[in-house]
Amino acid sequence: MNQTLKVVKIGGKLIENKGFMNSFLEDFVKMEGAKILVHGGGNKATEVAGKLGFETKMIDGRRITDQDSMEVITMVYGGLLNKSIVAKLQSKKQNAIGLCGADGRVLISKKREVKEIDYGLVGDIEKVNIEFIESLLDQNIVPVFSAISCTEEGILLNTNGDSVASEIAIAMSKSYETQLFYCSEKKGVLTDIEDENSVIPELNSTNYQNLVESKVITDGMLPKLHNCFEAINKGLSAVILGDAGLLKQNAIHTKIVK
Amino acid sequence: MNQTLKVVKIGGKLIENKGFMNSFLEDFVKMEGAKILVHGGGNKATEVAGKLGFETKMIDGRRITDQDSMEVITMVYGGLLNKSIVAKLQSKKQNAIGLCGADGRVLISKKREVKEIDYGLVGDIEKVNIEFIESLLDQNIVPVFSAISCTEEGILLNTNGDSVASEIAIAMSKSYETQLFYCSEKKGVLTDIEDENSVIPELNSTNYQNLVESKVITDGMLPKLHNCFEAINKGLSAVILGDAGLLKQNAIHTKIVK
Repeated sequence: MNQTLKVVKIGGKLIENKGFMNSFLEDFVKMEGAKILVHGGGNKATEVAGKLGFETKMIDGRRITDQDSMEVITMVYGGLLNKSIVAKLQSKKQNAIGLCGADGRVLISKKREVKEIDYGLVGDIEKVNIEFIESLLDQNIVPVFSAISCTEEGILLNTNGDSVASEIAIAMSKSYETQLFYCSEKKGVLTDIEDENSVIPELNSTNYQNLVESKVITDGMLPKLHNCFEAINKGLSAVILGDAGLLKQNAIHTKIVK
Repeated sequence: MNQTLKVVKIGGKLIENKGFMNSFLEDFVKMEGAKILVHGGGNKATEVAGKLGFETKMIDGRRITDQDSMEVITMVYGGLLNKSIVAKLQSKKQNAIGLCGADGRVLISKKREVKEIDYGLVGDIEKVNIEFIESLLDQNIVPVFSAISCTEEGILLNTNGDSVASEIAIAMSKSYETQLFYCSEKKGVLTDIEDENSVIPELNSTNYQNLVESKVITDGMLPKLHNCFEAINKGLSAVILGDAGLLKQNAIHTKIVK
């Protein structure tokens, strides 16, 4: 298993800044080896839904995806943002292809069961079509994923972008030495939440436990870090957390390892 | 050259009728051999543009594609309609993938030169990536094209759906015995424009010339038929014109041959 693969997730808020996206995609194109891009797109969908006269329903800060919302998500994530990113990569001489989960049956999911809250057309990924992704990587084509999956029955479902990225990375780690990059608004895991310069450069499960016990890492970061260590335990070689400049050489970041 | 390929273009007006689309896609799935689907989407884009507050500019019945219109086209053709068709095909156990011209550099075009009228972001196809399409067909994946192409410089362009279908069919005819199907609102070429039952079953260039000279075929049909014969002369084995039911066995149609 010599081949390396980098799976990069770019958050919805960053994507809307055109100047930033241009520089981010330049950094992405310069990265060597096989790579995959996953993008969110939250705010733009809410904006378009509003203009189309659809109310975006939220419960506890989480979007409820009804049929109208799913149409908007399909338009905005699967069309506008996805195809614009692909075209931008082509303009930088990086061959790429835009995908949602229905394309090539690449991300098969199950609709989330209704418990206390019915989140609507929301899915959790059950199967990643590794062979199809490999056939694209073998042709030096970068797969660009919008956060939409598809059931076995052909129903499109809204899917958490971080989960799309980690499920793809975990599945691909069977054939590639895989690293997962999360680009968001934070430089990494901080020892002092008030101080952007307190980034922890590397975290393994032992010093992570110590930092949780000593209450240096708390609240908001816990679920995300839990998922990162879970991905590491399922086969990833590293998860790397950072901000918009994460793909630049010598960027400050937190590297999570086993 | 034993392998056959069917390229099917479905018009924008038909696509908006969900009941029809379901039956059309069932017929499409039943067709044997390698196949490609190309779709338009006119009215839905105009409707969404209107709701978003963008005015759709038309000159002589032709859409002027400015930046705002192109965003809507990317959302509606490249996202909503394209991904819905792919999901619907998956629901019928037909593997498929949705593509615009930027994906895999599959349809490279040139922006139309400004002469009397500036049509804006409108392109004419210069290159079809045959190898990439073949790699999908070899995996039994049906490519589903929205009518969007992309320049060498990575600019997305609105492109006539009939031309997308014929350019793909002509390019693929180097490796496949290729037939092009145009599904629109008419049953085929009529000898009497008032009589839907006057469909001409087969037209070759000789009897076409005779019918033009005797003024049986006039006006509206001339440019379309001119393009059909041009496609035949460039390598297609047949162009087949018909209505929504064209893919059904024994459907009434006009078959255009050399």
